[in-house]
Amino acid sequence: MFRHTKKLQFEAKPEKPDAVFAMKLQELIGGAFGEMTVTMQYLFQGWNCRMEGKYKDLIMDVATEEIGHVEMLATMVARLLEGAPADVTAKAAKDPVTAAILGGMNPQHAIVGGGGALAADSAGTPWNGKYIVASGNLMADFRANVAAEAQGRLQTARLYNMTDDPGVKAMLKFNLARDTVHQNMWLAAIEQLQEDGLEGPVAPTALFDEENQEHANTIWGLSDGTAAPEGRWASGPAPDGMHEFRYLDDPQPLGGPASAPPPDPALYGTYAPPGGQGSVKGAKAATKPQSMGDRIKDALE
Amino acid sequence: MFRHTKKLQFEAKPEKPDAVFAMKLQELIGGAFGEMTVTMQYLFQGWNCRMEGKYKDLIMDVATEEIGHVEMLATMVARLLEGAPADVTAKAAKDPVTAAILGGMNPQHAIVGGGGALAADSAGTPWNGKYIVASGNLMADFRANVAAEAQGRLQTARLYNMTDDPGVKAMLKFNLARDTVHQNMWLAAIEQLQEDGLEGPVAPTALFDEENQEHANTIWGLSDGTAAPEGRWASGPAPDGMHEFRYLDDPQPLGGPASAPPPDPALYGTYAPPGGQGSVKGAKAATKPQSMGDRIKDALE
Amino acid sequence: MFRHTKKLQFEAKPEKPDAVFAMKLQELIGGAFGEMTVTMQYLFQGWNCRMEGKYKDLIMDVATEEIGHVEMLATMVARLLEGAPADVTAKAAKDPVTAAILGGMNPQHAIVGGGGALAADSAGTPWNGKYIVASGNLMADFRANVAAEAQGRLQTARLYNMTDDPGVKAMLKFNLARDTVHQNMWLAAIEQLQEDGLEGPVAPTALFDEENQEHANTIWGLSDGTAAPEGRWASGPAPDGMHEFRYLDDPQPLGGPASAPPPDPALYGTYAPPGGQGSVKGAKAATKPQSMGDRIKDALE
Amino acid sequence: MFRHTKKLQFEAKPEKPDAVFAMKLQELIGGAFGEMTVTMQYLFQGWNCRMEGKYKDLIMDVATEEIGHVEMLATMVARLLEGAPADVTAKAAKDPVTAAILGGMNPQHAIVGGGGALAADSAGTPWNGKYIVASGNLMADFRANVAAEAQGRLQTARLYNMTDDPGVKAMLKFNLARDTVHQNMWLAAIEQLQEDGLEGPVAPTALFDEENQEHANTIWGLSDGTAAPEGRWASGPAPDGMHEFRYLDDPQPLGGPASAPPPDPALYGTYAPPGGQGSVKGAKAATKPQSMGDRIKDALE
Amino acid sequence: MFRHTKKLQFEAKPEKPDAVFAMKLQELIGGAFGEMTVTMQYLFQGWNCRMEGKYKDLIMDVATEEIGHVEMLATMVARLLEGAPADVTAKAAKDPVTAAILGGMNPQHAIVGGGGALAADSAGTPWNGKYIVASGNLMADFRANVAAEAQGRLQTARLYNMTDDPGVKAMLKFNLARDTVHQNMWLAAIEQLQEDGLEGPVAPTALFDEENQEHANTIWGLSDGTAAPEGRWASGPAPDGMHEFRYLDDPQPLGGPASAPPPDPALYGTYAPPGGQGSVKGAKAATKPQSMGDRIKDALE
Amino acid sequence: MFRHTKKLQFEAKPEKPDAVFAMKLQELIGGAFGEMTVTMQYLFQGWNCRMEGKYKDLIMDVATEEIGHVEMLATMVARLLEGAPADVTAKAAKDPVTAAILGGMNPQHAIVGGGGALAADSAGTPWNGKYIVASGNLMADFRANVAAEAQGRLQTARLYNMTDDPGVKAMLKFNLARDTVHQNMWLAAIEQLQEDGLEGPVAPTALFDEENQEHANTIWGLSDGTAAPEGRWASGPAPDGMHEFRYLDDPQPLGGPASAPPPDPALYGTYAPPGGQGSVKGAKAATKPQSMGDRIKDALE
Repeated sequence: MFRHTKKLQFEAKPEKPDAVFAMKLQELIGGAFGEMTVTMQYLFQGWNCRMEGKYKDLIMDVATEEIGHVEMLATMVARLLEGAPADVTAKAAKDPVTAAILGGMNPQHAIVGGGGALAADSAGTPWNGKYIVASGNLMADFRANVAAEAQGRLQTARLYNMTDDPGVKAMLKFNLARDTVHQNMWLAAIEQLQEDGLEGPVAPTALFDEENQEHANTIWGLSDGTAAPEGRWASGPAPDGMHEFRYLDDPQPLGGPASAPPPDPALYGTYAPPGGQGSVKGAKAATKPQSMGDRIKDALE
Repeated sequence: MFRHTKKLQFEAKPEKPDAVFAMKLQELIGGAFGEMTVTMQYLFQGWNCRMEGKYKDLIMDVATEEIGHVEMLATMVARLLEGAPADVTAKAAKDPVTAAILGGMNPQHAIVGGGGALAADSAGTPWNGKYIVASGNLMADFRANVAAEAQGRLQTARLYNMTDDPGVKAMLKFNLARDTVHQNMWLAAIEQLQEDGLEGPVAPTALFDEENQEHANTIWGLSDGTAAPEGRWASGPAPDGMHEFRYLDDPQPLGGPASAPPPDPALYGTYAPPGGQGSVKGAKAATKPQSMGDRIKDALE
Repeated sequence: MFRHTKKLQFEAKPEKPDAVFAMKLQELIGGAFGEMTVTMQYLFQGWNCRMEGKYKDLIMDVATEEIGHVEMLATMVARLLEGAPADVTAKAAKDPVTAAILGGMNPQHAIVGGGGALAADSAGTPWNGKYIVASGNLMADFRANVAAEAQGRLQTARLYNMTDDPGVKAMLKFNLARDTVHQNMWLAAIEQLQEDGLEGPVAPTALFDEENQEHANTIWGLSDGTAAPEGRWASGPAPDGMHEFRYLDDPQPLGGPASAPPPDPALYGTYAPPGGQGSVKGAKAATKPQSMGDRIKDALE
Repeated sequence: MFRHTKKLQFEAKPEKPDAVFAMKLQELIGGAFGEMTVTMQYLFQGWNCRMEGKYKDLIMDVATEEIGHVEMLATMVARLLEGAPADVTAKAAKDPVTAAILGGMNPQHAIVGGGGALAADSAGTPWNGKYIVASGNLMADFRANVAAEAQGRLQTARLYNMTDDPGVKAMLKFNLARDTVHQNMWLAAIEQLQEDGLEGPVAPTALFDEENQEHANTIWGLSDGTAAPEGRWASGPAPDGMHEFRYLDDPQPLGGPASAPPPDPALYGTYAPPGGQGSVKGAKAATKPQSMGDRIKDALE
Repeated sequence: MFRHTKKLQFEAKPEKPDAVFAMKLQELIGGAFGEMTVTMQYLFQGWNCRMEGKYKDLIMDVATEEIGHVEMLATMVARLLEGAPADVTAKAAKDPVTAAILGGMNPQHAIVGGGGALAADSAGTPWNGKYIVASGNLMADFRANVAAEAQGRLQTARLYNMTDDPGVKAMLKFNLARDTVHQNMWLAAIEQLQEDGLEGPVAPTALFDEENQEHANTIWGLSDGTAAPEGRWASGPAPDGMHEFRYLDDPQPLGGPASAPPPDPALYGTYAPPGGQGSVKGAKAATKPQSMGDRIKDALE
Repeated sequence: MFRHTKKLQFEAKPEKPDAVFAMKLQELIGGAFGEMTVTMQYLFQGWNCRMEGKYKDLIMDVATEEIGHVEMLATMVARLLEGAPADVTAKAAKDPVTAAILGGMNPQHAIVGGGGALAADSAGTPWNGKYIVASGNLMADFRANVAAEAQGRLQTARLYNMTDDPGVKAMLKFNLARDTVHQNMWLAAIEQLQEDGLEGPVAPTALFDEENQEHANTIWGLSDGTAAPEGRWASGPAPDGMHEFRYLDDPQPLGGPASAPPPDPALYGTYAPPGGQGSVKGAKAATKPQSMGDRIKDALE
């Protein structure tokens, strides 16, 4: 269960409104790596965490913080939009300043949100449940968390250069700092998982004996660039301590042709029997197919 | 430019058809971490890479391999679907074997794909351009690549346990191996970026002086779990070598209330002036607002 | 079955083209509460209505009108786009008037629609089948209809302030009027449902005896704002005439901890048995799991 | 800012696992009217609320409760999925009980979520930011809130009939009760808005003088059903107290033909000038068009 | 403007309910080539048609018919769902017949639609505004219309084989027939466009003099299959009567390397100047960039 | 399996950057008919093709070429974005040139892509797996291919008029040419399918005897335009050589009313038995329903 205090985690007061920046800032609310994503990603990871203890408690701490980040950003957007609804086009277009803002703002901020934030990104694309990752495997998920915080800090840094409003910059300095500590924190958690003997560097820590050994350490040179073998991924020990990298210069396909079986006549795929004369027009000329029940049961036996 | 050989990178021959497993296998084709994602993610990263040389060449090598993985899986799906179109419901439902398959398969495999693979995941959700990450910052992107390969190997491992078909298992052993080496490879590339002095552990390697120092190393204890401070993220040096972790037990909000400014009357937000008597019904009773042009220009000055 | 007359329900003639306003007007065509939504929402409600008679006939009357509203708006958009395809950027950008229009229009109006309307909203997001509501319960659906017409009139009112074109304003005055009568109409239909004894104010009119009585009338004070108890939702009789509101100032959680069960080893969730020594790396060290068939059958017995 | 307690708002303990019901229950998590929707809808409404005081405090109280509802349901789903990963198809299909579960569960619960909940609905469609409504106009938004709680209670009631697990039923009884009080609460808030003189029954309370009076009270009989005039929406006073309903039996279109203007030659719309001889093949034969800059500037003057 | 008669264009009465087939039939309602698509595609094409006369009138005739097809199918789905809501899993799973239906039906038909049709396809994916094509160029659009009717008839034919219900088959025979005549009709309209001298076989009929002549007739052999040159696309006159096909056996790339320019330091792309010593960590070490205003203005001059 | 050469199929070098045109050009990368669509459409068609030989080899040739087209366009976009990240709004807005570019560019090009291309269209909507068509029936699919290349060439032609950059125009001349030959090629392949006796003009070539003959040749005049009968689709032989067109001037519905059956009480649809006294409030007053198991089994017998 959650509780809410009306105070923001950190102040979100722009000196002046700026509708264009409000649109850009939406990336940090509803973008693929925005605060809605990390909120939901960490919440679902926490609820899906199988071990009581330090990992689960950490995840829930951070998830709860992130809800408050959406709040800070939504408040900032509403304040940046103050006094910025759209006007009559012809009038607006005659003044370059107004014109630029008219062009650069998201019309839905006025028409749909009434001057408030939207659950969308800086291009107006709505947030999507597929952005989040919560697999139950903490190594795989913490890798995704580092990645999300890295992309988030990168986008925040880019936005930091697109404003000179001291109030906005103050908030973004806080966001940058949180993205720094959260990257460090998930990196530390990855180390901890290994120290605790719970997971190894390659996720999941399983099936190493069953996977195809011959192909578990080779980089296939399929593009004609010549520099790829210069990297440490091309030779020497791999980070998991279990493999020795090899670079294949001219790798050859190992499988047969990528053919598909003859179609079921009831599905009307275009088909002529190989070597056959004449033609087959869909199901018409096909011999009566074996019933599905029979075919499947045969297959199962 | 690309070229194609008709041979598969690795063989994709099931011993028997299995329409239910075909549906599940779609996760590896069109899921958020399926082969379409890594194909497009690596291609866009390669095209967006700013440095000629080993990084770009590696990315393009792997991207090109991944197109061939979509091909292997699509071929496998078509073969697993052989003889498995849907039948009349009442008949099918009378036989439990057929019934189970009827229930567990994606009807679009027959109706839309005619027995072929779809650009969708195991729940039928179509693949989406937002799944991919290509930011131009190699550290942030390689973090995402490790995460994608980890989730991919995890899903492959889960699928590996859901079949006993030797042909399917042989292909999945190859996929598992490739996901192992690709995780190792991106981990090695992350080390290489740091050795080459191009990026540090926290992305992007910038704005550390400007971000809010006070908040760049604290974990906020916002959930009442008590175990979070036991982890190495709660004290001691952070992985970036620049920060010392601190855990805040009862952190207090630093900002003011999350209020929004008075609405523009032309947007009809519900509002009554504080302390005012009577009421304001939308724009009707509002004093004539300052023109948008003026307000924005004022704001810009 | 439907028939079409080539005349518009109401005139849709702008005095002058305005590509920026055309983009904004798309909200009323393909937005979440645009005319495509109410068209499809009312059609599916009508087809899903179980009682012949006045409710179904009303729904089909209004549904049929709404198709004509999409037509009016699509015609208006095509006329607003006259002479407004994009031009060479550098040239356009040198003239502020053209520049503003260039920035504020949707490029797909030219590139994809060839100067015609799109099935999308004012941010370019395509219309989506999930926007519509048709549950078969008329009280629940009429509540959604009032809401849709209210949001629709609100957006129309906002757009009305963003143009001074007399032809556009004339059409929007008609739209505003229709949104007024449609709100009144669905409100009347809600009253009628209750007068006819078909539904009560709370939907569905069922399970009142089975639901948890103790929690059917309390507002949980989970945010620290102090004013919530001042409203009529905090005490006194509820609108359904069956409950007396209560406000809980410091409500406590009623459930146990939000824990998840141990993971299935075949899914490789990170896990260590509580109190156990050593570690479990995925499925490797796990004891052979009970077969799924057995576990499920046990569960079913 | 938010805080979290590890206890659930209400207990979420099934007696037995049930993977099929887990899939269905996803509707209440990530469906269009699930708990993710009301969580985000109320949060954004609260942050976009322009008046400090009882309305805003209420919205934030309820929003905060709803986050905890997602938590309850996600916990329930993880527990219902215990021991229910997919198995080898052929084996599973031989046992009808297992077969039914195999067919009726969402494969992503195992492959993607590792036995945990997903941010998706019961058909596997991911949650979407367009599901939420937060316009800044409280009347329009509270109408949407009543509708959401009504659809939510309806879906919960349907699900209540699809299980006989006492633990699941206990939780659903709590959910039903919360949906009852929340419907009552938003209905009371609608009454309060009117008592406070802030809004009238038709949203927004504005532009009644400007809208087309003649068309603000008529129901257009466009379907040939004859019963629609029997309802109270066809005559008598409208709920807003300002209009008298009228039913039009054979309404005629008021506008001219739905024509589009001649296309811009640079967009290659198919076109032949009326009365012209010969034909026009795209832009080829077209006279040089006036420059866009000129045309738009003319239009703006 | 539209009018509605309560009678269906063709009867839609199943002999018996069949919830599994109802789910499949959704493909024809809300699939990419279902009736919602052709309805909206033809409506938008008609409204976007620039010439009054036979083309526009035909498009509006067919568009209006298609709305009635959605109606037929939605009615059929509601009737097929009669008596088919989901039941308690454990009970249902014990009976194979019920179990199969439980597995093969879309749970949203009960939970969301209350036994009515959904605006979604057979995998539950909601209909999407991007499915439709309405470009203003009639040749390009009629090509899309033939394609849509062909896919539609193909899917209908597949569904026809999945039922033996005489009532369902009677309706599908009507649908098949309409898809036949609509394919013929759009093919005839393509011929008509050419006879009328409005468009040629290749759309748009423009820019043939400006396009790169050398590359307007060659098939590039980029896959190692050897049979492609056997087709009539490899030599001889092309269908447009203006080109002579050529097949290139070993085509070579014509462009330079696919490199991207150095990144803007403010965007923190990973970069080291070629030949440079040491490294560049993001913006930190970068020389102060030229202001964006200057760079863009330079570029524009 | 695929291989990559680092050279572009054709040069992609703009003379100057142009961020606005970069945004527009995204339509050709990630739009519904962009290069990602034809890449994936042809790949899936090739993998789903049931006949080895000239058709499959052709499809794979062209599919492989299209991957290289995405590469050309992505490279062009990165180069057009050089030096065009967003700047501080207020500064930018004071200079009309910068302002126009600020308004007309996609903010995600800077914030998300770091100056590189996105997997999205010119309105920022992400690419979607539902854009592609691969049914297994080559006639139906080749129809879709002609349509895709026609829309693609149309969009390219429109974009060609929106730039005067010689480098961009050179590349677009190549794209136009490829779209010309690809239209011709698929038209030739359609002729070839018929010459080879594999398919007829109407897809699929099946069920002509079973479909409703009476309705397989009539155009229903459902819109009041009078010109539709003037076209060759209204009389005379149809393109398939099997039907004679007929135009119906005043067609009447053939089916009964579009009614839905009484709802299942457990789904709480609003309902009163016809002629019944009193009312039914949902399930409450309903007689105990027959169990689902029984009802379905009855239906199946």
